[in-house]
Amino acid sequence: MMGAAGQLALALNRLHGLPELAGRLGAPLAEADLVAVLEEASRFAEERIAPGRREADRAGCVLENGVVRVPPHYAGLLREWQAAGWQGVAAPVEHGGQGLPHAVWAAVFELVSSADMGFGLMPMLTAGAVELLAHHASADQAARFLPPLIAAEWNGTMGLTEPQAGSDLSAVRTRAVPDGAGGFRITGGKIFITWGENDIAANTLHLVLARLPDAPAGSRGISLFAVPKVLADGRRNGVRCGGIEEKAGIHASPTCTMIFEEAEGELVGEPHRGLPVMFAMMNAARLAVGVEGVGQCARATALAEAYAAGREQGGRAIAAYPDVARMLGEMRAVTAAARLIALDCAVSLDRARAGESGAEARLALLTPVCKAWCTDRAVEVASLGIQVHGGAGYVEETGAAQVWRDARIAPIYEGTNGIQAMDLVLRKLPRDLPAFRALAAEAGAADAALRGPAEALAEAASHLAFAPPEVAGAGAVPFLDAAGWVLGGAWLARAAVVEPALAEEAGFFLRRLLPRAKARLEEALAPA
Amino acid sequence: MMGAAGQLALALNRLHGLPELAGRLGAPLAEADLVAVLEEASRFAEERIAPGRREADRAGCVLENGVVRVPPHYAGLLREWQAAGWQGVAAPVEHGGQGLPHAVWAAVFELVSSADMGFGLMPMLTAGAVELLAHHASADQAARFLPPLIAAEWNGTMGLTEPQAGSDLSAVRTRAVPDGAGGFRITGGKIFITWGENDIAANTLHLVLARLPDAPAGSRGISLFAVPKVLADGRRNGVRCGGIEEKAGIHASPTCTMIFEEAEGELVGEPHRGLPVMFAMMNAARLAVGVEGVGQCARATALAEAYAAGREQGGRAIAAYPDVARMLGEMRAVTAAARLIALDCAVSLDRARAGESGAEARLALLTPVCKAWCTDRAVEVASLGIQVHGGAGYVEETGAAQVWRDARIAPIYEGTNGIQAMDLVLRKLPRDLPAFRALAAEAGAADAALRGPAEALAEAASHLAFAPPEVAGAGAVPFLDAAGWVLGGAWLARAAVVEPALAEEAGFFLRRLLPRAKARLEEALAPA
Repeated sequence: MMGAAGQLALALNRLHGLPELAGRLGAPLAEADLVAVLEEASRFAEERIAPGRREADRAGCVLENGVVRVPPHYAGLLREWQAAGWQGVAAPVEHGGQGLPHAVWAAVFELVSSADMGFGLMPMLTAGAVELLAHHASADQAARFLPPLIAAEWNGTMGLTEPQAGSDLSAVRTRAVPDGAGGFRITGGKIFITWGENDIAANTLHLVLARLPDAPAGSRGISLFAVPKVLADGRRNGVRCGGIEEKAGIHASPTCTMIFEEAEGELVGEPHRGLPVMFAMMNAARLAVGVEGVGQCARATALAEAYAAGREQGGRAIAAYPDVARMLGEMRAVTAAARLIALDCAVSLDRARAGESGAEARLALLTPVCKAWCTDRAVEVASLGIQVHGGAGYVEETGAAQVWRDARIAPIYEGTNGIQAMDLVLRKLPRDLPAFRALAAEAGAADAALRGPAEALAEAASHLAFAPPEVAGAGAVPFLDAAGWVLGGAWLARAAVVEPALAEEAGFFLRRLLPRAKARLEEALAPA
Repeated sequence: MMGAAGQLALALNRLHGLPELAGRLGAPLAEADLVAVLEEASRFAEERIAPGRREADRAGCVLENGVVRVPPHYAGLLREWQAAGWQGVAAPVEHGGQGLPHAVWAAVFELVSSADMGFGLMPMLTAGAVELLAHHASADQAARFLPPLIAAEWNGTMGLTEPQAGSDLSAVRTRAVPDGAGGFRITGGKIFITWGENDIAANTLHLVLARLPDAPAGSRGISLFAVPKVLADGRRNGVRCGGIEEKAGIHASPTCTMIFEEAEGELVGEPHRGLPVMFAMMNAARLAVGVEGVGQCARATALAEAYAAGREQGGRAIAAYPDVARMLGEMRAVTAAARLIALDCAVSLDRARAGESGAEARLALLTPVCKAWCTDRAVEVASLGIQVHGGAGYVEETGAAQVWRDARIAPIYEGTNGIQAMDLVLRKLPRDLPAFRALAAEAGAADAALRGPAEALAEAASHLAFAPPEVAGAGAVPFLDAAGWVLGGAWLARAAVVEPALAEEAGFFLRRLLPRAKARLEEALAPA
């Protein structure tokens, strides 16, 4: 068995040749340095973050007089996070980042999210804001906003959802009115704003979708605004937290209703072009949620392995019983496969930025698979983790139930997994069908066991790509799921060739789990 | 679409001919009366119990000075429950029950558990105690204990698990010492005792496994004792609650550590024969947990249907979107299939009691399938229910997350689902293989789509029945799962013939979900 950091380094160094790619992206990185970065991130995550995750869940968040109090130990943890500089791993060098490939951030973020998903959401959203601003802000905005975000002194949020506008953002009603001095006044309410308000960051920068007075109706009339909680002159802006949600998990991550009342904001990008800007950074955001899924898989597996090794029944550790061994085997195999899919997606993002031919299409196809498959698996793996613990798993003390409760949000936010599947099947398959068929063929070549499922996947893709929307819509989720089983199996097979320590995971996956791909393809193609 | 009570009545009246069977069991019951009973139970569950389920979850249980305070509204609810007489539906007439078939209780209990699983656990455990005492207590014990239990004035508990004895009950250490006057003094600690202590029942009767001083080691040296919280003369017995668990769900059902300190108890049954007595009532207890799974499927589906009908996006109710329709279709089909499997199991219990040939073997085979398949599906269906709600599903207010959290205990308690699968594959298949193959053949005859999967199931059964224990153990869970998909599909196909309103569920299940059976059989037969 290899630990998470070991698998991450193996995949990035030996399956993806990341050091060479990093050089092309202008941030040279030796294999040994990458190993050292991941080992250090793992140490930070396990020693500084993970010990507080149960307490963070128990303490949760409290809204008092407009201030959200996050778990008390988060203030010190944020200072350590700032000092260690992890936030800037993949951020632009000119604003204080280290400029490493995005895949390195994805790897570091897996370790952080695995240690405490609730805490990890703050760096995740901040990284999203950095991504967006680095590509779409003016030079002046970048100079003011990026350094404190990259230093993790400020946190960033994404203000999209409104009560009547969930998956359908064209229904956004928040208004932005020019103030006559080049700025805007934002008024409206946003819900489900992760880390929308907190008592530990020096400032919070809200990236908010709103409509200008002359905006056309629908999705072509939405603009993007940057709205800081505290203005440059130290005044408090007109934005406040109206409530926090009582949720099944991620108790330590405040999910806020944010009320904007003539809040001062700046336009980011062109007027009415807010949705394309937001969507442009969606690949990274959806990848990040998939990575959260991997992190929760890894945490569930680590907890279950430790419990099964230490708990005895009938005179031997329960890990030795065939059914417990089966559960642990599935957890390990799925975790490794999910990690490899997520890294393929992350490296594709870097390759696309390096201008490699075909990388853009690969990224477009892999992103929904990564987001949906890795997060659906996280909920299942966490549930298996509870089962390994037996009755103790249902008791909060062991932490197994927390992984399961925390993980359950990931199939929902940043576009539900149904939305991901429709993005793949209704939007991307018609556009990139040859690229998808090539991806399937590549998977089919990885191992004899994959040939049949990969062919069936390619055929289903060709069928669904041009099926009527009702048929494609009803088949989308099982199709995406099948794609994940095939692509994950292929990655495990390739990884086992390079690193024999992964042969057990690969064998278990291909022999025992891969049949699920065919079952889900049959479902995808059956009349609804 | 038919409601839960409608499907229950349809299945019992028209698929199982329960009224005729009831007559043979000495409790004549007309079809119309059965319909009326189920409608009344549904009304009680929906109008009296269900409105409090969110509040029950929120309030949870508190241990104060040795007293467990359950949610405040439960005191009044228990009085209504007592007055309505539901506890005694299938209990012996001579002790105040109505003597109806067990299947009627199973149907009523589904409705109760669906309304509030935490509350439902009290009647469930009490019914288990009644079952056990009705068959194994002395006439004198029955006369003293059964009337107050059947009237729901007392509640009953099962004291099996100890910290070192979870799935392996042979490791029980609690001691029972004769007091020289025909009674016993019980000393030891039990954990995970459902409703072990509470502030609303007049008394609590603990049925406790313990060892006599001369007991042989292992499972043949365990005896069963009845230990009331309050003794006949009004003295408080030496049993107290040492703590309650903080759990992921069923917050309103106290899960207690019970400490017995020279508590006065009575032997139930023969010395050293406690485990067989306990196991004799396990069929009913495991069936009841499977029924809980059905109840949670039904609740999740009802909540999701209501939400999807009322929530609009892009100008139409989300229920009309193909992927939401897919989720609702799966939830409805699985709920109906689980209900039909549970009722087959319940009716088999009644047929076995009526002495019908083959009923005992059918009951033995169906019980683990009912317990494990229905509860695994409950967690999945509840998770789909969250997904239908989107972000609102992760917020506790909608109640969707509660169903998921509550349902997650059911695959664990009353023998984990791994234990169920091993009971089926390692114990029952070798003994009852012809009966299992007949069951599979019966399923294969229900619809052309079932022929292949049913044959594959029968072949896998023949293979696993005589495989080495490690192979059978590693294949047990996926095998049982496959059995549930096949048997559930067969029941839906038969039900749709009798009642065309179920054709949609049957078609959805057979076309889209049944392929999972083959995938899980491949997994079961693959080398571990």
